[in-house]
Amino acid sequence: MNLKDYIASIENFPKEGILFRDITPLMLNGEAYKYACDQMVAFAKEVGATVIVGPEARGFIFGCPVAYALNLGFAPVRKPGKLPRETVTVKYDLEYGSNELSLHADAVKKGDRVLIVDDLLATGGTVDATVQLVEKLGGQVVGAAFFIELEALKGRERLAKYPIFASLKY
Amino acid sequence: MNLKDYIASIENFPKEGILFRDITPLMLNGEAYKYACDQMVAFAKEVGATVIVGPEARGFIFGCPVAYALNLGFAPVRKPGKLPRETVTVKYDLEYGSNELSLHADAVKKGDRVLIVDDLLATGGTVDATVQLVEKLGGQVVGAAFFIELEALKGRERLAKYPIFASLKY
Repeated sequence: MNLKDYIASIENFPKEGILFRDITPLMLNGEAYKYACDQMVAFAKEVGATVIVGPEARGFIFGCPVAYALNLGFAPVRKPGKLPRETVTVKYDLEYGSNELSLHADAVKKGDRVLIVDDLLATGGTVDATVQLVEKLGGQVVGAAFFIELEALKGRERLAKYPIFASLKY
Repeated sequence: MNLKDYIASIENFPKEGILFRDITPLMLNGEAYKYACDQMVAFAKEVGATVIVGPEARGFIFGCPVAYALNLGFAPVRKPGKLPRETVTVKYDLEYGSNELSLHADAVKKGDRVLIVDDLLATGGTVDATVQLVEKLGGQVVGAAFFIELEALKGRERLAKYPIFASLKY
């Protein structure tokens, strides 16, 4: 299955000069979506993940099915103010600006083997922030899985310490 | 399995007077999360869904595993400006304010049997808006599935035309 057939490439979105890779056609095709999720499931098994962590909202799109398929828990990383209990928070740089991310303080325990899942690896800012959140709580990041990697933005170099999986590269 | 054991109830969140039902402990327990998703999978089969539609971000938490489990497509409902191609949009009332939601114009086709999935049924405003989006595109809403229903807010009455499933009621 050629998963690139299910990606729409949109010029100048969300702003001038950005070529946006739209994954919604993939998600809308049940076979293609399952195929993409199952590649991440295989990677999660390979690295021995015991919990899945994913940033909102698109990290949920792949991370939740991976957790479901493996009977693992899923911990959401969210913008400040969304998680109601005690959190840890880091500030991070986005491809288009900056932001903060939070994780519940009890979402990851010492010894947990955490796989981070997101839709896209660009500069790696969001994932790097997520790694910091997990490590602050004593978790071990055993890998990060993405549906798409934008190679020119060198996110893989930023995450050089961790095993990285990406279904598609542009 | 008593799923209520996995819900944290937080007083005065996100504002004074609101008792927030926090589902993150459920999501973090692989068995409980799978059990909850599988109840929705059974409902999706019962109503003969051919596509799953869920509002961001928490609709993805249950909707994506349901789509994955059944080899169905998933269409995300998002805030304006997040979806890069042609959309339909409606304005709706939230439990705590108002907002707008969009759906890609090609996400639902005439004849699609749509199951709407979200984490929580409160007043039903978000789901009602999602129903409008689906019906504008010619889709048939065959049901709506929630993890939690807040019965006092009467969302079920608002959605009286549609089969409703909820795992937990408060």
